[in-house]
Amino acid sequence: MKPVKNRAVKYTIGVDYGTNSCRALLVRTTDGAEVATAVFPYPTGEAGIILDPKDPNVARQNPADYIDGFVATVAAVVAEATKKIKTFNSSDVAGIGIDTTGSTPMPVNAEGLPLAMTPEFRRHPAAQAWLWKDHTGWEEAAIITETARKAKVPYLAKCGGTYSSEWFWSKIWHCQRSAPEVFDAAYSWIELCDFVPAWITGNLKPDQAARSVCAAGHKAMFSTEWGGLPSKAFLKKLSPKLADLRDRLYSTAQASDQIAGYLTAETAAKVGLAAGIPVAVGAFDAHHGAVGAGIKPGRLVKIIGTSTCDILVAPATTAVADIPGVCGIVPGSVVPGMTGLEAGQSAVGDIFLWFAHHCCPPEFRRENEGATIAALEKAAAKLAPGASGLMALDWNNGNRTVLVDPLLSGLMLGQTLHTTAPEMLRALVEATAFGAATIINRFEEYGVAVREVVNCGGIAEKSPFLMQIYADVCNRPMRLSRSAQTCALGAAIFGSVAGGVYRTTAAAQRAMTGIKETVYKPIKENVKIYAELFAIYRDLHDAFGATGRHPNLEGVMKQLIAIRQRVR
Amino acid sequence: MKPVKNRAVKYTIGVDYGTNSCRALLVRTTDGAEVATAVFPYPTGEAGIILDPKDPNVARQNPADYIDGFVATVAAVVAEATKKIKTFNSSDVAGIGIDTTGSTPMPVNAEGLPLAMTPEFRRHPAAQAWLWKDHTGWEEAAIITETARKAKVPYLAKCGGTYSSEWFWSKIWHCQRSAPEVFDAAYSWIELCDFVPAWITGNLKPDQAARSVCAAGHKAMFSTEWGGLPSKAFLKKLSPKLADLRDRLYSTAQASDQIAGYLTAETAAKVGLAAGIPVAVGAFDAHHGAVGAGIKPGRLVKIIGTSTCDILVAPATTAVADIPGVCGIVPGSVVPGMTGLEAGQSAVGDIFLWFAHHCCPPEFRRENEGATIAALEKAAAKLAPGASGLMALDWNNGNRTVLVDPLLSGLMLGQTLHTTAPEMLRALVEATAFGAATIINRFEEYGVAVREVVNCGGIAEKSPFLMQIYADVCNRPMRLSRSAQTCALGAAIFGSVAGGVYRTTAAAQRAMTGIKETVYKPIKENVKIYAELFAIYRDLHDAFGATGRHPNLEGVMKQLIAIRQRVR
Repeated sequence: MKPVKNRAVKYTIGVDYGTNSCRALLVRTTDGAEVATAVFPYPTGEAGIILDPKDPNVARQNPADYIDGFVATVAAVVAEATKKIKTFNSSDVAGIGIDTTGSTPMPVNAEGLPLAMTPEFRRHPAAQAWLWKDHTGWEEAAIITETARKAKVPYLAKCGGTYSSEWFWSKIWHCQRSAPEVFDAAYSWIELCDFVPAWITGNLKPDQAARSVCAAGHKAMFSTEWGGLPSKAFLKKLSPKLADLRDRLYSTAQASDQIAGYLTAETAAKVGLAAGIPVAVGAFDAHHGAVGAGIKPGRLVKIIGTSTCDILVAPATTAVADIPGVCGIVPGSVVPGMTGLEAGQSAVGDIFLWFAHHCCPPEFRRENEGATIAALEKAAAKLAPGASGLMALDWNNGNRTVLVDPLLSGLMLGQTLHTTAPEMLRALVEATAFGAATIINRFEEYGVAVREVVNCGGIAEKSPFLMQIYADVCNRPMRLSRSAQTCALGAAIFGSVAGGVYRTTAAAQRAMTGIKETVYKPIKENVKIYAELFAIYRDLHDAFGATGRHPNLEGVMKQLIAIRQRVR
Repeated sequence: MKPVKNRAVKYTIGVDYGTNSCRALLVRTTDGAEVATAVFPYPTGEAGIILDPKDPNVARQNPADYIDGFVATVAAVVAEATKKIKTFNSSDVAGIGIDTTGSTPMPVNAEGLPLAMTPEFRRHPAAQAWLWKDHTGWEEAAIITETARKAKVPYLAKCGGTYSSEWFWSKIWHCQRSAPEVFDAAYSWIELCDFVPAWITGNLKPDQAARSVCAAGHKAMFSTEWGGLPSKAFLKKLSPKLADLRDRLYSTAQASDQIAGYLTAETAAKVGLAAGIPVAVGAFDAHHGAVGAGIKPGRLVKIIGTSTCDILVAPATTAVADIPGVCGIVPGSVVPGMTGLEAGQSAVGDIFLWFAHHCCPPEFRRENEGATIAALEKAAAKLAPGASGLMALDWNNGNRTVLVDPLLSGLMLGQTLHTTAPEMLRALVEATAFGAATIINRFEEYGVAVREVVNCGGIAEKSPFLMQIYADVCNRPMRLSRSAQTCALGAAIFGSVAGGVYRTTAAAQRAMTGIKETVYKPIKENVKIYAELFAIYRDLHDAFGATGRHPNLEGVMKQLIAIRQRVR
């Protein structure tokens, strides 16, 4: 397949694979105008996720949903653009970019076909895609961390010092240990962000598929510093079969300004595009989201959704320390030519959704969970900081940064016989804000300055209530990305670079991204109360997390009551 | 007023004043048969309680509700008995006994009339009865404890070493400090359990009203060991006005086998009884409840309702140690001639009611909170111990025993994104069971043996689910009192003693009380899991309570997850 020649190209398409749905965005390359968008909720499982009622750690997805999602959403945006813009011609689409959740690996056969798409393994849970938030490999993660520490190998230095159950090797190894029939039937494994470009460009075979440096570096302990993936000798310590698998994985990985391949005629026909359009190498949603939010050195981009990702970049010329508890420090993972730094919170919106579903009394219940949360927020917004006497930890899905421990859980304290649902929701929002502040502090403690914060993602868009609390807790202005679809926009930006419209990512960002005028400014009196509450949060954080610090908690409840009395 | 002569007497009436309503019970003295009962929900405030939306510590009641309640319920049982039993004659009622919540003191004028029943103070919140669960005097309680410790006076030895915000002096002093106009207008103060007998016998004047040794000894630091109430010198350290008040309170106190007076003609006419019936000295509901449950040495009676009381008695000949954290050790407070020991949990049913009201999603919501709790329990009963990964502390209303600290609050940890409402309810029930076990352990550590446990009160009656968890957590069979109205029955027993039907309380108990055949036996495998969970509860208990022990909590969440994995 040869590339089509660039003509007077004006559009680019980004496809963003989220946790419950995927979205395509068709963008004008001159100014980032978002011409058309379409969403496809994954049909399999509960909101797109295959769960196991017996094990809350299980979260899988059906790979066929990803392909159906690509076809449905891209066809829809092409059709919409054609309808909206008289001069639009599908051949004006210069490139396509892809971002996905991750680490979301899936087992494939020698042809690169997901085992879940073969008749034999169609219904086998272990043959599906292992969604980022699948935590079944928690035991394997702990052994990987322990083994790497004992072996004194450097592999954990770039991922915070602790390997996560959410990542590549934990999942694959857990598959080997818990479903050996699937592991043995798999020729190789591929990340979702590599699978979609491989499928749509016809480069599905494991040795042909381009591999994202973002996925490889953040999740698979891949680094050119030690010759790619961890050594066979190290993997053998975990399991000889993992060591064997290394030969059938990959040895190089690329940034998203590189081309993964060209759209096949078959897929092009299904979506109404010309065959041969360049497709950029994929990456994770948060990293592309950061690009779509105009990331640059000193600007922290927070993508706030079901979970959060916190992304920073540092010029390649700056030495970046290995920061304990920060999930990933990977050259080229965000903006090619810069070092990408990734941190995050394992659950943010997911905690509010859980609360709305399982803990919300009828008087605040609305037609769906989003509206329920809005109703709770409306009541919670009337409360003063500290007035509830509550304090929560934001660990319902473990703690990604800075503790890197999936075996942590939620906590709330300070309940009386009068505590209300809006008070509890507010405490949960505040807990996520304290978690966010903990991440910023960790970056700054290790010399990575955070000069401004730009927020994006569904919750940043929808909840001024949450954004104000974040501003007050972090004592920093909170800004918003102009685009509401920064991940898909970031993917589209890489589509425009792959398609040759722009020569650098930075140039494409300058043309296509922006910041909203709205700024959430810290409110002085709230900042003061939250500083007191944050000290209590940190005591709980340090006491229940493995920090080595064991604060005396005897006064915690009394302190909260004293603040409550004062504030009321 | 002279006593009526005893004739062929067959009946006695007990009136029990609870938190939200009062109840009269008309009982046959030969066998304890409960002939008639009637309930009167207090009309004032929210479920009978005057609250303050700005301060969750406030809980007051309207004294007029108590009088209306006496008339309504006693008239009703007399009418019902007359209707039911052809041979019944109201002159067959030998005596009346009264029990109430406490410490529930109220300010009165020189005539003994509650200030709340005078036009000037009718609507003043501080002029009402200060319900047992009013915690506004928490600061005063702390100062009383501190002052008594510094002064090395023995006053706290009988009440666990820490004075409570729920008790007499904390409330009265808080009234002086926060509403001096009410304090100054009050000639004296009277406990609810003394007020009702005083009112119905016409002995309302402060120097005429009989005082309950149960209320005096448990709540007012009254003991013959130090000449009654705390010394003026000590009270002066708190406030000169409190020292002055001492002279206008009381210098003797009596057990409930003594007569407080005789029913006035006025009240007798209102309820359809003969004037002159003996009325026993009042006491607290739990103490009478224990008598109604057949308390005797070695038998712990647990009265499980909105809160619990745990009552034991020891023969007067046995030396009882001063047990730290046990609320009261008072001769004659339960069974005359024996030492009464009282412990308790500040909230049990109240926690479930709070949960049902504020935290229960619609799928478990029923027509009222009781039915909602039943629906949650039905689902929670299907869960195995440890399967939720949750752990809670039962401190939503502070901790009465063994920490004696109202400035503690609720806690729950272990929440995931899948935690359900029945799991949370079960964790709260288990937390109250761990609290119950903590009390039993404390008694036994100080040499007071608990050979059997008899439960009574609304929740013991209604919830086999809770009783089984208590049996499993405490690893002891849980039995039930035969009567569902043990408090009112206990009051009726004292009515029968006051009325001369029986010469001793024990003789009346033998005739009128019993145990049900139902026994909740510990289930071996549950006992094992709960022993593990109890160790975690104790770590949290000791870390957040002022125990001087600071356990390392780093492993708590992981331990709960490990148990969850194992159990599932």
